[in-house]
Amino acid sequence: MDVEALVFDVFGTCVDWRGTIIREAERWSRDHARSIDGAGLADAWRAAYQPAMEEIRSGRRGFTQLDVLHRENLDRIAPRFGLSGLDAASLAHINRVWHRLDPWPDTVPGLRRLQARFLLAPLSNGGVALLTRMAKRAGMPWDLILSGELFDGYKPEPKVYLGAARLLDLPPQKVMMVAAHNGDLAAASALGLRTAFVRRPTEYGPAQTTDLKPSQKWDYAVDSMEALADALRC
Amino acid sequence: MDVEALVFDVFGTCVDWRGTIIREAERWSRDHARSIDGAGLADAWRAAYQPAMEEIRSGRRGFTQLDVLHRENLDRIAPRFGLSGLDAASLAHINRVWHRLDPWPDTVPGLRRLQARFLLAPLSNGGVALLTRMAKRAGMPWDLILSGELFDGYKPEPKVYLGAARLLDLPPQKVMMVAAHNGDLAAASALGLRTAFVRRPTEYGPAQTTDLKPSQKWDYAVDSMEALADALRC
Repeated sequence: MDVEALVFDVFGTCVDWRGTIIREAERWSRDHARSIDGAGLADAWRAAYQPAMEEIRSGRRGFTQLDVLHRENLDRIAPRFGLSGLDAASLAHINRVWHRLDPWPDTVPGLRRLQARFLLAPLSNGGVALLTRMAKRAGMPWDLILSGELFDGYKPEPKVYLGAARLLDLPPQKVMMVAAHNGDLAAASALGLRTAFVRRPTEYGPAQTTDLKPSQKWDYAVDSMEALADALRC
Repeated sequence: MDVEALVFDVFGTCVDWRGTIIREAERWSRDHARSIDGAGLADAWRAAYQPAMEEIRSGRRGFTQLDVLHRENLDRIAPRFGLSGLDAASLAHINRVWHRLDPWPDTVPGLRRLQARFLLAPLSNGGVALLTRMAKRAGMPWDLILSGELFDGYKPEPKVYLGAARLLDLPPQKVMMVAAHNGDLAAASALGLRTAFVRRPTEYGPAQTTDLKPSQKWDYAVDSMEALADALRC
């Protein structure tokens, strides 16, 4: 086992996007004196995420930053969730909730331990600015920020994983992808990266049905970042 | 003053490349039972740096990673400095001295203070892997790693400065370039970035004649990173 770098999926794996949006929506409801269904908004917003990226992965649309896709999707669903008629600054603030997502409780303690032995980076479809600001706010100790944006692509496109290994100046076998999503690990594994599955059974809420367990025999399968640090003897 | 990010030149500004090579050369001399002129090697190696990048900036050569340029230059000057006949692993180790450069004594304490108020990143002609490993070894608290490599270019090419601002999702005026080299600041300033000059009067050794003082009225001119933290009230 000569892994030198761990690269992490972020939305769902490191941070709780659904819980954060629900919590922030309570504040937006108060601030704007209206009732915003946070869970409904989070789920609808997230449901629009993969289709928007698929336009780009398929080549039908040129590379477009995730903040822009998030904003287009927000504008589309806003009327359904009590967000109509907000001023531009408020909508920009709401869109940037993706920069302010809270980590799962085990994320920062786990990363702090892993940091002692490995290079750590996000490898996310979130943009560089988003990932940087999220990490600074939450105290996630990345050594560098890696993002599909650096390669004009979105996971699971191979160029994202291979681009990360290239920038790290490591062969894929010395890089381990850490994710709560089997599809992300399958794409990484097919390119030679090592894999660690982190169970996040409530990422999509209490009724989650996907990614409850490993779909293949990944190198590691754990319940938290702290358990990953244990498994990797950090 | 609404600067949100500070981006730093690295070789000479944050780290002492000449002193580190001189110190390491003493060890290489012992390890290989030969006498290596560390100061001569450092100066000759560095003298080959700009011409190698100029081949790329001019378009005569496609983008090539700095580690490769360093190695080509090392191979060229090796016979003059007692490095002939070393095995491949030893030469690879010597070439990676650029990943192991020691910071000036004020660098890490200054960056730690600046980190509380600003996004911090290198913006160097060193590659991403080099800058990441150097920072990890030395404890430089970057929020992200920015490098000409991300833009297939070398400072002072405009695309490097503008690419950095774009990845940070900031207008150039909200980004401040920090450097010990007036030329770097002139290029940044022409594109709208703010500027801070850090005097490093012994970067090139005791007889240094260049960049001893600001050539223009930069936004700040200081003698150390701690003085920069003072000036920016961190």
